[in-house]
Amino acid sequence: MSRFNIEACLSPALFQYAETGDVIAVVIDTLRASSAICAAFDNGAKKLIPVAEIEEAREYKKNGYLVAAERDGYVLDFADFGNSPFNFTRERVENNTIVYSTTNGTRTIEMASKCHKVAIGSFLNLSALAEWILKQGKDVLLLCAGWKNRVNLEDSFYAGALAAKLLEYPEFETNCDSVKICLDLWNSGKDDPLEYIQKAAQRLRLGEKGLDDCIPYCHTPDSSKVVPLYQDGALYNDIPDKS
Amino acid sequence: MSRFNIEACLSPALFQYAETGDVIAVVIDTLRASSAICAAFDNGAKKLIPVAEIEEAREYKKNGYLVAAERDGYVLDFADFGNSPFNFTRERVENNTIVYSTTNGTRTIEMASKCHKVAIGSFLNLSALAEWILKQGKDVLLLCAGWKNRVNLEDSFYAGALAAKLLEYPEFETNCDSVKICLDLWNSGKDDPLEYIQKAAQRLRLGEKGLDDCIPYCHTPDSSKVVPLYQDGALYNDIPDKS
Repeated sequence: MSRFNIEACLSPALFQYAETGDVIAVVIDTLRASSAICAAFDNGAKKLIPVAEIEEAREYKKNGYLVAAERDGYVLDFADFGNSPFNFTRERVENNTIVYSTTNGTRTIEMASKCHKVAIGSFLNLSALAEWILKQGKDVLLLCAGWKNRVNLEDSFYAGALAAKLLEYPEFETNCDSVKICLDLWNSGKDDPLEYIQKAAQRLRLGEKGLDDCIPYCHTPDSSKVVPLYQDGALYNDIPDKS
Repeated sequence: MSRFNIEACLSPALFQYAETGDVIAVVIDTLRASSAICAAFDNGAKKLIPVAEIEEAREYKKNGYLVAAERDGYVLDFADFGNSPFNFTRERVENNTIVYSTTNGTRTIEMASKCHKVAIGSFLNLSALAEWILKQGKDVLLLCAGWKNRVNLEDSFYAGALAAKLLEYPEFETNCDSVKICLDLWNSGKDDPLEYIQKAAQRLRLGEKGLDDCIPYCHTPDSSKVVPLYQDGALYNDIPDKS
């Protein structure tokens, strides 16, 4: 049996040193972009356009799009709502295209687009994503969005959760130290993920802005079956097979 | 009481995103450069010149220097001995200047030289280094040399050991997720560091070349009191205070 390797980049700044190309890239930005994207598709969104710059989001708004955008905890004046997964209610997003402003997330997704396929990973779709990855029959790259190119705890922790899930299948193996690091983090915190993540800098940043109410939700595994995939500048829950 | 922050870069590629400048940088390349450097000074070496390129090492040899240099497990034909810490015996190195060829290590040391001071960290000098850092009264940057700009397990694990040692002093604190990651690794493996490090890719690489005999030595804490410092292109065990 051929086995597929799991590799991890703990920051987008390390992507250039990873094995890319014919691999499945999983973009991880658990607090909050990955989780919001999964929530949006779980509530029936048709398409989601990630944008890195505020001005780009503003242009989309002028053209009639629903826009989720905030900076420093404030919903931007032109936007429809902020970046919390709780904003992506069925009433708002069902059958709609939404523009989502996220600097770290967007840049990481665009970077990953040179890989064979790009999926979005969060605790919400942990098992569904692992099952989907298994079907692809490819090596996997776990790409953490981090924070301003720095390594963060929550994305590395989730990378460990997903790696552990994949390694339950005999089809996967890893020879990557970064994956082994993530697995150790997951093993340190898996008995109580929410308690574990308390020490993350992003948890403190969100708390200071009163945006931490979504953290338990973002760490609840398997509430969703969606597998958001990126193609040609946008995310979809189901796209034609590229292969 | 003012408290000093501990930050970590898990790869040299992340150095540009860290707080540098008026900080003490600790360069970590436990398998094997950091450990060999400590061993050399422990055995009385006067000065150690790290070089990244083989040609540079060859030039030094022509000029009469003692040179430690190997590639892919073979001692280079012009060199006096290879890169294992075991080669830096008192008979060879006492009162001598030695040129040490190490690609990852040298580049990381040179990068760190924009910081206030640069020290070399290994398990051999763990406690001595922590005591020296305490006396500096500065923030600390733990800079892992990694492997070809990738994160590696052994350097991150050691960064956790040193961070844990520093955090025993009330003078230190950390708000850095990378340090928290390293602390979790250290906590996962501190009961048996040698067993923990078995899974590291570098451990396998050294093993394949028959160069793994030094791994227990490289993971023995506090066998030495040296604190190698970098100044003007070379390492010394004791240098005039820059401040």
